Amino acid sequence: MPDRLNIGVLGLGRMGYLYAGTIAHVPGAVLYAAADPSEQPRARVGAEYNVPHLFADPQDLLALPELDAVVIATPTSTHKDLLIAAAQAGKAVFCEKPIALTIPDTHAALTAVERAGVPLQIGFNRRFDAAYARAKELIQSGQIGRPVTFKSVGRDPFCPNPQFADPAKSGGLIIDMAIHDFDAARWLMQSEVARVSSEGALLVCDTLRAVGDIDNAVINLKFESGALGNVEVSRNAFYGYDIRTEVLGSEGAVNIGVYQHTAVLLLTRSGAQHDVTPYLMERFGDAYRAQIGHFVSSVINGTPPAVSGKDGLASLEIGIAATRSLKEGRTVTVQEVRQANS
Amino acid sequence: MPDRLNIGVLGLGRMGYLYAGTIAHVPGAVLYAAADPSEQPRARVGAEYNVPHLFADPQDLLALPELDAVVIATPTSTHKDLLIAAAQAGKAVFCEKPIALTIPDTHAALTAVERAGVPLQIGFNRRFDAAYARAKELIQSGQIGRPVTFKSVGRDPFCPNPQFADPAKSGGLIIDMAIHDFDAARWLMQSEVARVSSEGALLVCDTLRAVGDIDNAVINLKFESGALGNVEVSRNAFYGYDIRTEVLGSEGAVNIGVYQHTAVLLLTRSGAQHDVTPYLMERFGDAYRAQIGHFVSSVINGTPPAVSGKDGLASLEIGIAATRSLKEGRTVTVQEVRQANS
Amino acid sequence: MPDRLNIGVLGLGRMGYLYAGTIAHVPGAVLYAAADPSEQPRARVGAEYNVPHLFADPQDLLALPELDAVVIATPTSTHKDLLIAAAQAGKAVFCEKPIALTIPDTHAALTAVERAGVPLQIGFNRRFDAAYARAKELIQSGQIGRPVTFKSVGRDPFCPNPQFADPAKSGGLIIDMAIHDFDAARWLMQSEVARVSSEGALLVCDTLRAVGDIDNAVINLKFESGALGNVEVSRNAFYGYDIRTEVLGSEGAVNIGVYQHTAVLLLTRSGAQHDVTPYLMERFGDAYRAQIGHFVSSVINGTPPAVSGKDGLASLEIGIAATRSLKEGRTVTVQEVRQANS
Amino acid sequence: MPDRLNIGVLGLGRMGYLYAGTIAHVPGAVLYAAADPSEQPRARVGAEYNVPHLFADPQDLLALPELDAVVIATPTSTHKDLLIAAAQAGKAVFCEKPIALTIPDTHAALTAVERAGVPLQIGFNRRFDAAYARAKELIQSGQIGRPVTFKSVGRDPFCPNPQFADPAKSGGLIIDMAIHDFDAARWLMQSEVARVSSEGALLVCDTLRAVGDIDNAVINLKFESGALGNVEVSRNAFYGYDIRTEVLGSEGAVNIGVYQHTAVLLLTRSGAQHDVTPYLMERFGDAYRAQIGHFVSSVINGTPPAVSGKDGLASLEIGIAATRSLKEGRTVTVQEVRQANS
Repeated sequence: MPDRLNIGVLGLGRMGYLYAGTIAHVPGAVLYAAADPSEQPRARVGAEYNVPHLFADPQDLLALPELDAVVIATPTSTHKDLLIAAAQAGKAVFCEKPIALTIPDTHAALTAVERAGVPLQIGFNRRFDAAYARAKELIQSGQIGRPVTFKSVGRDPFCPNPQFADPAKSGGLIIDMAIHDFDAARWLMQSEVARVSSEGALLVCDTLRAVGDIDNAVINLKFESGALGNVEVSRNAFYGYDIRTEVLGSEGAVNIGVYQHTAVLLLTRSGAQHDVTPYLMERFGDAYRAQIGHFVSSVINGTPPAVSGKDGLASLEIGIAATRSLKEGRTVTVQEVRQANS
Repeated sequence: MPDRLNIGVLGLGRMGYLYAGTIAHVPGAVLYAAADPSEQPRARVGAEYNVPHLFADPQDLLALPELDAVVIATPTSTHKDLLIAAAQAGKAVFCEKPIALTIPDTHAALTAVERAGVPLQIGFNRRFDAAYARAKELIQSGQIGRPVTFKSVGRDPFCPNPQFADPAKSGGLIIDMAIHDFDAARWLMQSEVARVSSEGALLVCDTLRAVGDIDNAVINLKFESGALGNVEVSRNAFYGYDIRTEVLGSEGAVNIGVYQHTAVLLLTRSGAQHDVTPYLMERFGDAYRAQIGHFVSSVINGTPPAVSGKDGLASLEIGIAATRSLKEGRTVTVQEVRQANS
Repeated sequence: MPDRLNIGVLGLGRMGYLYAGTIAHVPGAVLYAAADPSEQPRARVGAEYNVPHLFADPQDLLALPELDAVVIATPTSTHKDLLIAAAQAGKAVFCEKPIALTIPDTHAALTAVERAGVPLQIGFNRRFDAAYARAKELIQSGQIGRPVTFKSVGRDPFCPNPQFADPAKSGGLIIDMAIHDFDAARWLMQSEVARVSSEGALLVCDTLRAVGDIDNAVINLKFESGALGNVEVSRNAFYGYDIRTEVLGSEGAVNIGVYQHTAVLLLTRSGAQHDVTPYLMERFGDAYRAQIGHFVSSVINGTPPAVSGKDGLASLEIGIAATRSLKEGRTVTVQEVRQANS
Repeated sequence: MPDRLNIGVLGLGRMGYLYAGTIAHVPGAVLYAAADPSEQPRARVGAEYNVPHLFADPQDLLALPELDAVVIATPTSTHKDLLIAAAQAGKAVFCEKPIALTIPDTHAALTAVERAGVPLQIGFNRRFDAAYARAKELIQSGQIGRPVTFKSVGRDPFCPNPQFADPAKSGGLIIDMAIHDFDAARWLMQSEVARVSSEGALLVCDTLRAVGDIDNAVINLKFESGALGNVEVSRNAFYGYDIRTEVLGSEGAVNIGVYQHTAVLLLTRSGAQHDVTPYLMERFGDAYRAQIGHFVSSVINGTPPAVSGKDGLASLEIGIAATRSLKEGRTVTVQEVRQANS
C-alpha cells in the first residue's frame, strides 16, 4: 500500500458530504474521487475540496486504477451491491452502517468482501469518540469490576423527513438509530446479546404515520454473560442531540455523556441556563475524523480495522430481533433471528 | 382534630427510628408513643425523644385514647393486620410502603380503612422531595409538552442482609425497590401503566442466592396513554445511593438527580473528584420530614393525604406484573394481575 | 454543666428568629428565654417554640439564674455591651459576627470574656458547612499539597435595605460580607493575612448612595506564608445566593460551591436550565444547625469552641485594612491596623 | 486578493508547528512556505504538510512574491523586527501575542504596519473560542445587564522551562499569561482598564528562581466604566489546564469554563471522578483554527481583522502596569504607563 491513500466517496448526501470533508483533513488520505447521480452535490464537493475525479455512476469511480479505497455513503438499500462491486474491484471499503437491512443481504456482502480479501470497516463512529474510548479503557482495566447493566439513550433533536424514515429504506427506528447502541453494548459489555424485548410507539412525529414508523422505543437486553441492559431511542429530543451511555459494574459505574456544548453558564433571575449539543457533528465531529483516520492507517499498515463486517452483522441481528419483539409483543432471542437466516 | 397530633410509631427498626426522629422535629406533631417487641430500641427512642408511652405490644399503643395517629414501620408482613387494627381503633394511619405483598391483603386493608373512615397516607417519600416536586410542577405547567417516555434508576449502595431481602418478606427486588419508581411513573406521567416486561438476574450479591432473590432488573413500561418507560433497579451501586428519574416529553425533558453530595470538587493530577450521596437519608432526609409534615397537616385540616391507599395498590399491581414478567419471560398486562384478584 | 443547656436568644430579628428555630431542634439545647424590645417578634417566637421566658430588656434575660448560655443576635452596634454583660453574668456566649465594628470595642469585649472565663463562639457558620468542612479535611490531609492561592466569591441576591447597610452600623460592604471570606481564608490557608489591597464601587444598588456604601469589591490578599488570595463580594447577584471558595495548592486544588439547588434539569428548545440556591438558609441551614450544635456540646463538655473571639478579631482587622485600602487607594498591611490599636 | 491565501509561517517551535497544522486545514489557506533556523522542524513540517518552500532565513521567505501573508510565531524578542519587515514586504500579518515586550517597540511595529497599509491580526485566540464568543453575544444582547465585575483564572498545568519563562524574553508571568485575560477583560467588559494592583510570588516552581520570575499572581482591575475585576494566573495547576472567566452584571452573570474534558464520569467506592482538560490544544484547538480562518477570510475580503494591533498594545499596557504594581507594591494607573511612553 502507498503511504497516501486515494479515497473515493460514493454518495454525496448529508453523510457523504461530511465524509468528503473529513477525508480532506485526515493526514495520509487524499480525496481522489466522488460519485453522485446529482450534479449539484458533485459540483459543490469538487469546488470545495479540489476533487480530481467526479462521476455520476459509481461504477466509473470503482474503475479508477489508482483508487485505493472507497467510502460508501449512499442510501442503505444500495449498500450491498456497491460493497460487492467495490470488493470485487479490490478496493478497501469503509461502509456507513448498516451494511444492509436484511441478514441475507449482509451475508452476501460479507462473503464478497471475504473472497476479495479487502479490508472492511463499518461506520460505528462512537467507538472513536474520546469519551466512549475512555470508558472502554476504564472498563477493560477493571475499574468498575464486571459489567452488570448497560444503559443507553439515543435521542435525535428533530422528526426526520418521512422519506428517509420509511422503514423499507431505513429499517425502522430501532434498526436505524439503536444499532449504534447495540454496537456500543456488545463492545462495552464484552458479551453478545442473547435476547431482547421492546416497547415502542408513534407519539410525537405525526408525519411518520404515513410511512408506518414509530418515534420512540425502549428495548430490554439480556446478554449471554447474564448481564442486563436497556436502550432507549427517540426522535423528539427537541432540546438537542442527546446521546448517553452508562455501564454499571460489580464495583462501580461509568457514565458517558454530558448536557453541555459550549462551556458557558448564564445566570439570571430565572436560574442557570446553558446550551445542549445541538446536532450530530457538534458531538461526534472528532469521532468521524478519528474513524476515517483509523480506516486510513489500518489499510496503509495492513492491519484489520477495529470495527469489522461481523460487528455490523451482529448489531443488525439484535436490531431485527428487537423490531420483531416490538411487533409481536414478546421476548425474542437473537438466536431465533440468526437461525432463520442460516 | 386538635392542633397538635399525638402520634405513635409502630416498629422501631431502621425506618421506625427514623420516623420517630422525624416526628420529633415536625411542627404540630408530638411523638406520643412507640411500640417494639425489643427493649433496646424502645429504650433508645424513649431516652432520645422523651417519649411518654412505650410498649412491647402494638395493641397497647393503639388502645391509648389520646393517640390521634400511627406510623406503621414494622416488617411488611405485619402491615395489613396493624393497618386494620389501627383503622378499627379510629387512628389516622401513615403506612410505610408497601401496604402488603399481595393484592388480596392490600384490598382487605383498604376496605378496613374505608369502613373506619380514617385518613391513610402511604410512604412514597419521593413525592415530597424538592426535586421531584419541582419536576412535577414543570411537567404539569406544560414545560415539556406531553410526557412521552419515563426513565428511572434506583440503585442501593450495598447488598442487603439476605434476611430482609427474602422475597417472602420483601416481595423481591422489583416490589421492594421499584415500587418507588412505579409510583413516580404514575404520578409524573399522569397515566396508569398498562403492561410491563422485565429482565433480571443475580449478578453481584451472592448472599442473596440462599433466599432466591435477584440483585438487578430492567423493566419496560407501556402506559395506557401510549407512552413508554423503563425502570432499572440494582443492589450493587457501591459508589453511592443513586436515584435518578427523567421524563421525556413532546417538547422537552426533565431530569431529576445529580451525582454530588457536598459541593466540593477535588482537583489533582488524577483528575477531578467529588463525592456521591452515600445513603438514603443524605438524599431524602428532607423528603421524609416533608411527608410526615404533609400527613400531620392533612389530618389536622381534615383534607385527604396526597398519597392514598389506592396509590399503594396501583404500584403493587405493577410490581407483581413486573415480577411475573421476569419469571415467565413474557410481557404481562397489569389488567391480568388486577383481574386475577377481583 | 448540665446535660441540657438552657439558652436565651438576645434579639429576635431575622437572625435571632433563625437561631431560635435552630436551638429548638438541636439535641441537648433548650430554648429557655428570648428578649427583644418589640412585642410582635417576642410573641411569635413564644408561640411557635413554647419559650418559657420572654423579655423586652436583655438585662432581665441575663438575670435568669437557670440560664446557661446566650446567643447574641442583636444589631452589631450593641454586641460589645451585651457580650460584656453576658460574660459578667457568667453565661456562655454565642455571638453573631462581627463582635464589634472597631478594634478597641472588640478588645474590650474579649477582655471581659477572658476575665469571666466563659466560653465564647463567633458565628462564622461556613466552618460548619459540610462542603467547607470536607475541603478543610482534604487540605489538612495534604491532598492538594501546600495552599498557594485562596479565591472566594460571596454574592447576595438582593440590594440590602439601606438602613441595615449603613456603614456606621454594618461596617460597610467589606466588613459586613467579606468577613466570612476572611475567616475562611485564615482557616483554610492555615496562615494569617499580612496585607491587602482593594477596589470597590457602587455600581448597581442606587439606594445605597444615601448611606455612602458600595455594592461590589475585590480584595487582593497576601498571606504571611507568602501565599496569595482574592476575595470578591457583591450585593447584586440577582440570580441567587452565590458563595464559592477555592484553594489552589502546590499539588492540586479544592473548589467549594455549585450552582444548583434542587437536583432538576429542565431541557427545552432554549437549552438546559436549573435553579440556583435562592437564599442563605437554603445553602447554609444545616451549617447553622451544626454550629449551634457545636456550641452546645462544647459548653456541655467544657471544651473551647472551634471559632474563638480571637478569630473574630483577626477577621475584623483584615476587614478594616481592606476598607482602608479601598479608601486610600493603596496596599495596607494588617500590622498597620493592629499597631494603631495596641 | 486571490481566493486562496498563500501563507508563510515564521518560526517552527511549538506554536509555529501548531499554526502550520492549522493552516493546512483551513479552507482557503495554503501553507506555502515556512522558515526556521533549525533543520529538523523545517524537515518535519515540510514532510507532513508538503510545504513547497522552506527557508532558514525569514528574509528569504518574505521575498517570495506569490506569498500573501505570514504568521509570526518566533520568540517574542524577534516579533518587532519581523513584523516591520513583513509589513514593508507588503504581506498581511498574523502575529502571536505579544507584539513586543516594550511599549516603544510595539509603537514602532504598529507604525510600520500602518504605513504599509497591510492587515494585522494579533493571536488572542480566546475571542474565537465558542464559549467566549457565546458569552460575548449574551453580554452584548443585554442578558446580564451592565457588566459590573470581571473575574478570570488562567492556570497552566506545568512549571515552564526556565529558559522560556525568563522575564527578559517572556515579559514575566503577568505579561506572558495574563495578557490573554486582559484582552478578554477589555472585550467582554466593553471598557478600558484604568488602574491595577497586583500581588505575586514564587511559590511552587523553584526552577524559576534562577531567572527571577514568579509563578502565581492576583491582579485587581478598575475599569474606566467604574467596573471592577480580578485576574489570577498560575503555573502550578498540575491537575489540568484551567481557564475560566466570569462576568457579573447588573442583572445576571455569565460564567465560562468547565472542569471536564471527555464526557465520562467514573463512579467508584471513592466517589465520582472525571478528567480535566489536560493542555492548551485540547481546550482551544478549535479556537486556533477559527482565528486563522478569520484572518484568512478578513484578508481575502479586505475587511479589518477583529483583533487589531491596538488591542495588542492595550493589553500590553495593562500587563506592564500590573507588573509594575507587583514590584512597587502600589496601585498603578494604565495612564501612567501610557504617558511614560508617549
